Amino acid sequence: MMQPQVLAFDIFGTVVDWHGSIAREIAVIDPKVDADAFALAWRAGYQPAMQRVRSGELGWTRIDDLHRLILDGILPRFGLDHLDETQRRELNRAWHRLDAWPDTVAGLTRLKRRFTICTLSNGNIGLLTNMAKRAGLPWDCVLSAEVFRAYKPDPRTYLGVAETFDLKPSQVMLVAAHQDDLAAARACGLQTAYIERPLEFGTGQPKDVSPDPANTHHARDLEQLADLMGC
Amino acid sequence: MMQPQVLAFDIFGTVVDWHGSIAREIAVIDPKVDADAFALAWRAGYQPAMQRVRSGELGWTRIDDLHRLILDGILPRFGLDHLDETQRRELNRAWHRLDAWPDTVAGLTRLKRRFTICTLSNGNIGLLTNMAKRAGLPWDCVLSAEVFRAYKPDPRTYLGVAETFDLKPSQVMLVAAHQDDLAAARACGLQTAYIERPLEFGTGQPKDVSPDPANTHHARDLEQLADLMGC
Repeated sequence: MMQPQVLAFDIFGTVVDWHGSIAREIAVIDPKVDADAFALAWRAGYQPAMQRVRSGELGWTRIDDLHRLILDGILPRFGLDHLDETQRRELNRAWHRLDAWPDTVAGLTRLKRRFTICTLSNGNIGLLTNMAKRAGLPWDCVLSAEVFRAYKPDPRTYLGVAETFDLKPSQVMLVAAHQDDLAAARACGLQTAYIERPLEFGTGQPKDVSPDPANTHHARDLEQLADLMGC
Repeated sequence: MMQPQVLAFDIFGTVVDWHGSIAREIAVIDPKVDADAFALAWRAGYQPAMQRVRSGELGWTRIDDLHRLILDGILPRFGLDHLDETQRRELNRAWHRLDAWPDTVAGLTRLKRRFTICTLSNGNIGLLTNMAKRAGLPWDCVLSAEVFRAYKPDPRTYLGVAETFDLKPSQVMLVAAHQDDLAAARACGLQTAYIERPLEFGTGQPKDVSPDPANTHHARDLEQLADLMGC
């Protein structure tokens, strides 16, 4: 198979450690909160919230606003309903401050030499840009569900990357730590690379990182992906 | 006035030298062509082509496709109607290969330390990303008329930058070498910085670069803008 020209990266879990970062932020606000459970609860609301947009129940809504809806819903459960508007806004921005996995910046920097590297996340453009600036992620371009007005796994997102760069779908590779995202991209004709992130959900909930032979590449991390792709 | 958080840059003429770059490309194809006149003719079709989109005569059309429409129209005038489809496609991509002005990379690099820097161009995302990769333009984010499905000076473009970053319009500054672009941004509440580019249209057609006191800043180039903004 020909090398792709563009690598599009899933972000939450693949490039950055949402679990560890959210747990870190909530531990600062209140050390008595179960930080692991809080991070998992916030993230658990993510797919159902996007589903409300996909189904048409909600009009187009940015992830920042979906994160806030979910946050308001879970705060009472963790004894945090006393947080005021300013504190909630600030906490909601924790998703702009997620830490990169240790291999991320080095891996992306190597891959960028040979390929165009962009985000393809359901996160909104502002969130992704703020995150990149803080974590030093060297994107050539920030693409998002917000550009295509559709959330992954909608085909408009995967095909949208190819159209943006005037390429065939097979000239684009999705890089992600989630087999369902990769399967949807493959159904659109993209190449795919799976990245193991066994601790995406924390040490208490190790993830199955078995290879799927349908992927073009399977890599432990982004440094190994750079090895596999000759960078 | 408070410092902005985001600087949004016009591209053609402000950040890159379209005239010199297009003239350079056509001189390689055929040294007998009047390269200066060719560059000016191609660019002269730009506003009328976008007007066909703004008026609704054409549906949403990317600049790549508008550039191609204009190119096909002017080739006979320059004795170049013998160029075949492959040659025309390749020549049309000249807009992805525009050279930065000599101060651009150093100025942007300094400004990026303190501000979020993004494009706000009528050029499409793919064009802007390819250009940035070739010329080393260190954008935090590539924004384009394509994201907002409207061409400057439509208010949706200027206000779209503020909305993307969840900011007030006054927290965004447009940086451009064109007073009409800056005036439209100011009408939306943005701060504005004018950059002199006296040779935008080549040495044969020097441009009026008189200051307009309505702008927040007036700078000779992007290095001087970095000086003025304390970077």
